[in-house]
Amino acid sequence: MDRRGVMMVVSSPSGAGKTTLCDGLRKAHPDLIMSVSVTTRKARTGEIHGEDYYFVSIDEFNKMQADGELLEYASVFGNQYGTPKGPVAKLLEKGKDILFDVDWQGASQLSHTCGNELCRVFILPPSAKALNERLSGRGTDSLEVVAQRMSEAAREISHWPEYDYIIINDDLEKAQEEINAILLAERAKKQRMLFLRDFVDDMLQNL
Amino acid sequence: MDRRGVMMVVSSPSGAGKTTLCDGLRKAHPDLIMSVSVTTRKARTGEIHGEDYYFVSIDEFNKMQADGELLEYASVFGNQYGTPKGPVAKLLEKGKDILFDVDWQGASQLSHTCGNELCRVFILPPSAKALNERLSGRGTDSLEVVAQRMSEAAREISHWPEYDYIIINDDLEKAQEEINAILLAERAKKQRMLFLRDFVDDMLQNL
Repeated sequence: MDRRGVMMVVSSPSGAGKTTLCDGLRKAHPDLIMSVSVTTRKARTGEIHGEDYYFVSIDEFNKMQADGELLEYASVFGNQYGTPKGPVAKLLEKGKDILFDVDWQGASQLSHTCGNELCRVFILPPSAKALNERLSGRGTDSLEVVAQRMSEAAREISHWPEYDYIIINDDLEKAQEEINAILLAERAKKQRMLFLRDFVDDMLQNL
Repeated sequence: MDRRGVMMVVSSPSGAGKTTLCDGLRKAHPDLIMSVSVTTRKARTGEIHGEDYYFVSIDEFNKMQADGELLEYASVFGNQYGTPKGPVAKLLEKGKDILFDVDWQGASQLSHTCGNELCRVFILPPSAKALNERLSGRGTDSLEVVAQRMSEAAREISHWPEYDYIIINDDLEKAQEEINAILLAERAKKQRMLFLRDFVDDMLQNL
């Protein structure tokens, strides 16, 4: 039955438990696909083209960007990263749900290019104290590095109003249940169940 | 923490499993409150005012209706039924989630009076065949009664596009998981978490 996939965007400041929750979500929904980015950075040993990233040249990246083939893009430490439009469109048409692990800038760009296809989830730490503790690490980092992390976390957090769902990760089990439920609920949204009109017409004709 | 409750509206043709699913939902979420209607019909033995219904006189009902104190109302077999505004508003403010078991007409009226407070769920049977079997009953009802039920079911089903979420009840366990997930997800929606702005401001000040 034709169903349109969910584009699930998850953001959070680092140290709020996003990776754990996304791993748990993929375990609960093994058919959920991680979005694969294009990047201009060199492949590291063991990284597979098309699986970890699509590795492209700077020229190729610039052409994709100019041709509007990137749903979002960003520059990180001098390397370009972006989400290619083609694979996402194909997966959504096939009814596959896709997980986008992006920051607020990526989420904001996706909102402009993909509008109401998105389901945007923001994960908050339970308190400043908890976040402080997690970001301070094992006490081996310089005060400067910790301060830099804090200010990045604060900037990320300030963008929570741009998301649809907010999960406060004060109880990992509860937070996991919530993010799993969000995906399940989004799947049941009328606009994604493209087969419904025919399904109901057929039912009414046979009543 | 201040959270605004969810108004969850569930409709379906009879024979699609709504009662079973709503019972299961209330078991999974014991804090979910059933909306209590006002009615002009006489209380039956054992029925408790304020629990099963608010029993009112026709004059009282008409006054409530005229004063805009009913979120929706309908006439069934000569008796008036309606949803009073006051108790619902109070529960939502307290962060209590409320379940409304209404037909498409009730859902439509609630949509006009309560707008985006609502989360509207429609339950569909898996097929015309399955619905036919359930509505035909034990073969003891007259053809006329069965035909009447079918035509009511068809009318109800035709209103599915007015709902937000559609559950096809072809697997009770899966359908139960879906309706439970919808409530959990709706609770995590940003607009219902009224405490978030203060919560985040406080967190940012203490980072």
